[in-house]
Amino acid sequence: MEVFIEPIGRLINEFSKLPGVGKKTAQRYAYRVINMTDGEARAFADAIADVKRRVRFCKICGNFTEDEICDVCKQRDSSVICVVKEPKDVVALEKLHEYKGVYHVLHGVIDPMNGVGPNDIRVKELLARIDGNVKEVIMATNPDVEGEATAMYLAKLLKPLGVTVTRIAHGIPIGSEIEYTDEVTLSRALLDRKTI
Amino acid sequence: MEVFIEPIGRLINEFSKLPGVGKKTAQRYAYRVINMTDGEARAFADAIADVKRRVRFCKICGNFTEDEICDVCKQRDSSVICVVKEPKDVVALEKLHEYKGVYHVLHGVIDPMNGVGPNDIRVKELLARIDGNVKEVIMATNPDVEGEATAMYLAKLLKPLGVTVTRIAHGIPIGSEIEYTDEVTLSRALLDRKTI
Repeated sequence: MEVFIEPIGRLINEFSKLPGVGKKTAQRYAYRVINMTDGEARAFADAIADVKRRVRFCKICGNFTEDEICDVCKQRDSSVICVVKEPKDVVALEKLHEYKGVYHVLHGVIDPMNGVGPNDIRVKELLARIDGNVKEVIMATNPDVEGEATAMYLAKLLKPLGVTVTRIAHGIPIGSEIEYTDEVTLSRALLDRKTI
Repeated sequence: MEVFIEPIGRLINEFSKLPGVGKKTAQRYAYRVINMTDGEARAFADAIADVKRRVRFCKICGNFTEDEICDVCKQRDSSVICVVKEPKDVVALEKLHEYKGVYHVLHGVIDPMNGVGPNDIRVKELLARIDGNVKEVIMATNPDVEGEATAMYLAKLLKPLGVTVTRIAHGIPIGSEIEYTDEVTLSRALLDRKTI
């Protein structure tokens, strides 16, 4: 005799596919769904089906959108393009409510160790966007080996096209302590020091 | 401009309703769903809808089942009934593959502080099950104040009906150390000592 009846076992299995969710957590989630009202469970199931049906990628920047072109590309200053690895990086930057330009989502970074070359991410699409109107391209890839390499690679391609290429600053996070800052970050912060 | 487009925001909101899931985790889950294939997402949505449609409670023991009566009640020795608080306790006991009797799920325990009385849990249904065939009722409610009180209350009702009422043993968990055992458990273990 199985410990779980089929529909519960299957739901536990589905929840286990989420990142960082083990059998025990999946079980807790499944129990929660069983205790939902019919309406709540239907809303949950619909939200999952809907997201796949309605979410696509913006033809211009590659960010999530419901239309052909996303709201950011439609409405904002397209003379500044901020290049990021993934759509979730756009979310992090948008939460600031400070940046007024548009984005370009690469959907990955160059990572030769894992077989990801420039043709596997949206490099061509970025180059196609550079016209007389674009003044600055901000590299906002992660400050790790692949992110740095991708930023350098793109900078080399973009500079001959006559745009200013910038990189987001690296240094000590606000509120942290010098004593506990890792050596790489600290040496970078020292190197990038500014006149005050 | 919203940070998330509507279908993504809605899915994040749905995931946030799961126990222990905050905004950030819900976001990670939503991204995972967006990256699923259409088939995977449909299977996930269907599993949620299915569980609500197909899972009900056994007419006899109150455990999860797809039919009127669950497989445990249909097939097993009904002369021993193990009383538990919730269906997930049945799962924990079934995983042992040792217990051969049937269950009775109370769907709660008596908890006057939170307004839960004997009529709010499946006490009547338990008493109705006691006939000449039932020899033993094992109280497997949790070893906390409410679980103990519920076990004592039920024992008082059941004993006059001529059945043996037992309680699962409390003591030091196997593999743990006496030094680190909490005082209540240790004193209970001392009190319940057995001749060897």
